[in-house]
Amino acid sequence: MPHLLTLSDLSIGTINDILNRAQEIQIQNLYCIQQDIICANLFFEASTRTRFSFEAAEKRLGYHVLNFSDESSSTQKGESLYDTLRTLEEIGVKAAVIRHRQDKYYEDLRGRLSLSIINGGDGCSDHPTQALLDLMTIKQEFSSFKDLTVAIIGDLRHSRVARSDAEVLTRLGAKVLLSGPKEWMNSELPGEYVGIDEAVKTADIVMMLRIQHERHTDGMDLSKEAYHKQYGLTLERERLMKPGSIIMHPAPVNRGVEIADELVEAKRSRIFRQINNGVAVRMAVLEWAVNQTEEAKRHEYTANKR
Amino acid sequence: MPHLLTLSDLSIGTINDILNRAQEIQIQNLYCIQQDIICANLFFEASTRTRFSFEAAEKRLGYHVLNFSDESSSTQKGESLYDTLRTLEEIGVKAAVIRHRQDKYYEDLRGRLSLSIINGGDGCSDHPTQALLDLMTIKQEFSSFKDLTVAIIGDLRHSRVARSDAEVLTRLGAKVLLSGPKEWMNSELPGEYVGIDEAVKTADIVMMLRIQHERHTDGMDLSKEAYHKQYGLTLERERLMKPGSIIMHPAPVNRGVEIADELVEAKRSRIFRQINNGVAVRMAVLEWAVNQTEEAKRHEYTANKR
Amino acid sequence: MPHLLTLSDLSIGTINDILNRAQEIQIQNLYCIQQDIICANLFFEASTRTRFSFEAAEKRLGYHVLNFSDESSSTQKGESLYDTLRTLEEIGVKAAVIRHRQDKYYEDLRGRLSLSIINGGDGCSDHPTQALLDLMTIKQEFSSFKDLTVAIIGDLRHSRVARSDAEVLTRLGAKVLLSGPKEWMNSELPGEYVGIDEAVKTADIVMMLRIQHERHTDGMDLSKEAYHKQYGLTLERERLMKPGSIIMHPAPVNRGVEIADELVEAKRSRIFRQINNGVAVRMAVLEWAVNQTEEAKRHEYTANKR
Repeated sequence: MPHLLTLSDLSIGTINDILNRAQEIQIQNLYCIQQDIICANLFFEASTRTRFSFEAAEKRLGYHVLNFSDESSSTQKGESLYDTLRTLEEIGVKAAVIRHRQDKYYEDLRGRLSLSIINGGDGCSDHPTQALLDLMTIKQEFSSFKDLTVAIIGDLRHSRVARSDAEVLTRLGAKVLLSGPKEWMNSELPGEYVGIDEAVKTADIVMMLRIQHERHTDGMDLSKEAYHKQYGLTLERERLMKPGSIIMHPAPVNRGVEIADELVEAKRSRIFRQINNGVAVRMAVLEWAVNQTEEAKRHEYTANKR
Repeated sequence: MPHLLTLSDLSIGTINDILNRAQEIQIQNLYCIQQDIICANLFFEASTRTRFSFEAAEKRLGYHVLNFSDESSSTQKGESLYDTLRTLEEIGVKAAVIRHRQDKYYEDLRGRLSLSIINGGDGCSDHPTQALLDLMTIKQEFSSFKDLTVAIIGDLRHSRVARSDAEVLTRLGAKVLLSGPKEWMNSELPGEYVGIDEAVKTADIVMMLRIQHERHTDGMDLSKEAYHKQYGLTLERERLMKPGSIIMHPAPVNRGVEIADELVEAKRSRIFRQINNGVAVRMAVLEWAVNQTEEAKRHEYTANKR
Repeated sequence: MPHLLTLSDLSIGTINDILNRAQEIQIQNLYCIQQDIICANLFFEASTRTRFSFEAAEKRLGYHVLNFSDESSSTQKGESLYDTLRTLEEIGVKAAVIRHRQDKYYEDLRGRLSLSIINGGDGCSDHPTQALLDLMTIKQEFSSFKDLTVAIIGDLRHSRVARSDAEVLTRLGAKVLLSGPKEWMNSELPGEYVGIDEAVKTADIVMMLRIQHERHTDGMDLSKEAYHKQYGLTLERERLMKPGSIIMHPAPVNRGVEIADELVEAKRSRIFRQINNGVAVRMAVLEWAVNQTEEAKRHEYTANKR
């Protein structure tokens, strides 16, 4: 029953195995025929990228896909997440991809289910497959993480991507710089706070964060234009970037706010490359989870027979 | 054009054929490759269990699945159910699974369509595949239905499960006991009304019903705690149950209301087993409907050729 | 990157190729096994017929299908259509079927995407696959379009079907008559305005249009009964029709308004035949788009290698 809940649970060895397998999947342009794996997507928050990326990954692996939607399900009748998942388990679901607005929604599910949970993002907490696809993108560019400088800039407080990335990059030996509005600083993140110009100038990777309007309770008083000028990657700031350095963003982009419209598809932008990598990474993660589950079941079966 | 609208339409022989086939499907853990059957799920009421159970069944049979959702379809433009189904028929759909809030919504569809209708629940009236999976669960436990005592307890008035189960179990030779709040008694159900303690003590199967809040117009004045104490399966009442007797519930469960939280996954509970059986039963039902349709078409074709 | 945005973009030769392939697909009752094509359906307006017709077509071709729904996606977070499509492209989508309330939503997408866009209807403007299935239906009946008289009757102003059909039929040599309420006349349509009785009497094809309530901002003051009497195909009017002439309607039908209830499935009605033809036509269109895309990619690849 291996879950992917947060990257903190995975060893560096496992992370590298997943990244290597993702690279292999991408090079082979892998599509599988399989007929006996059912998985489910449970998205309790709006999503295009992550949801379709997972669904494409699942279908390329040949899995049957059940798409759960909040509005038309029994969670409307007050059913708990545990009961919903136990139900899906009995229906034959081997892996469930879950996005949930509640931080660490999975805590009270650990050890109670035989299906694999793949975390598709929880509250402001974690987004492990986004971090993995960011790692894959960085690795394709720089081969290793050691001694790279990564600047993570923007809405550090509400971004689950920031937290997942900062933690795993630090573990992998990269130097993390943090920058953004004072109101959105986040003392829980590993990394050093610097001014945005210094961050942009020094970094090998300039990773801009999406403003998570939908997760804000406190407004920020800045207009979009003012935010862009103070904390965004403007055309002027991009000129400060080092040769060979790249721009990343988890998307969807607020064009002209976090990043100048013209930079989204600029030469040094890897924003759409990240999305492309997302499918391969998710295929590798699903394969890793499901194969281990099937393997575990076989062992159990052999043990029972003796 | 065989439909499954209500179990009353099926002979005991057909019911047994379906149950035997379901058992076979479950033992074989059957997944099929097929490429030329399209089916559709039309759920006009919220559902997790039944909808995903059917979808898993359909995909395990190798069918192509169209998921119709009320909000984004032409029923929004005022289209009738008949016109929607005629449309799906022309699109190539061979079987349509329908859940509808209106009792016997299918009455004016009989004889007008060449696709198979599988009733996924209509109003407070019927839920034939739930009754079949309940039968499968009981048969796995007791081999036969003759002389078993089944206590159906709770919201008898609004439960389509109660009606479907009480009728078919009576036909199969079981003794049905009914219990629950006076306000929710239902004189149309076959069976004998008894007090809840007697029901629990006497029964081989204690079948607790879900309180159908979403179908109530009249409130009940009891708090959840009071309901649980008076009409629920409490920890104390469970101790009255006979050795070898089992607990069933169509789910989703209101934990702590119809049944004590701790009993949901207790040893004698078959609640999740029921869900598991649901997939096999629905595979058997779909196979039965679609194969007969295809068979009928072949005959028609041969007749045309002569 | 061939798109199907409006039939005006297609030569008569290409239109005929698609119609011939659709006919072949229908006769063979074609179902394909394919495993490496992903397509997406993006419907920003309610639809049953078109959406499921496309989905059935896609699945019969063996494609993997992603169903995008407005409510649960990042367009909720303000993402533009271009960014959504670029995302899908990176996820591996080869063809996107789009229905959108905005006329010519595709104008600023042209030349910026490598996936194929298949227009599933835009505002009051175009509905090219509907026109193709109408052509297929007419061709099955009359073999050719030359010198046929087609009367298009009803809500000419808000009907994208009217525009697509009138234009292509004129190009193919048919004579188009137009009729309907003065308020809904549309001077942009090719064709001659005549009274409804004359239209019905003269036409080989009487094509009734759906009243597009959902696209009206200006109400019409007529009751349903009065509309039916003045502009509908009543039982009396049907008796004026020429022998061998047929009735068409894009559906969903407002029974008793545009057309008498009894005529919907009358002998000379081809309304459900149109729906049936829709699947074959859409299979032919998708095949045409996707195969050209794959072909183009192969050429590009060879060119790169040299």
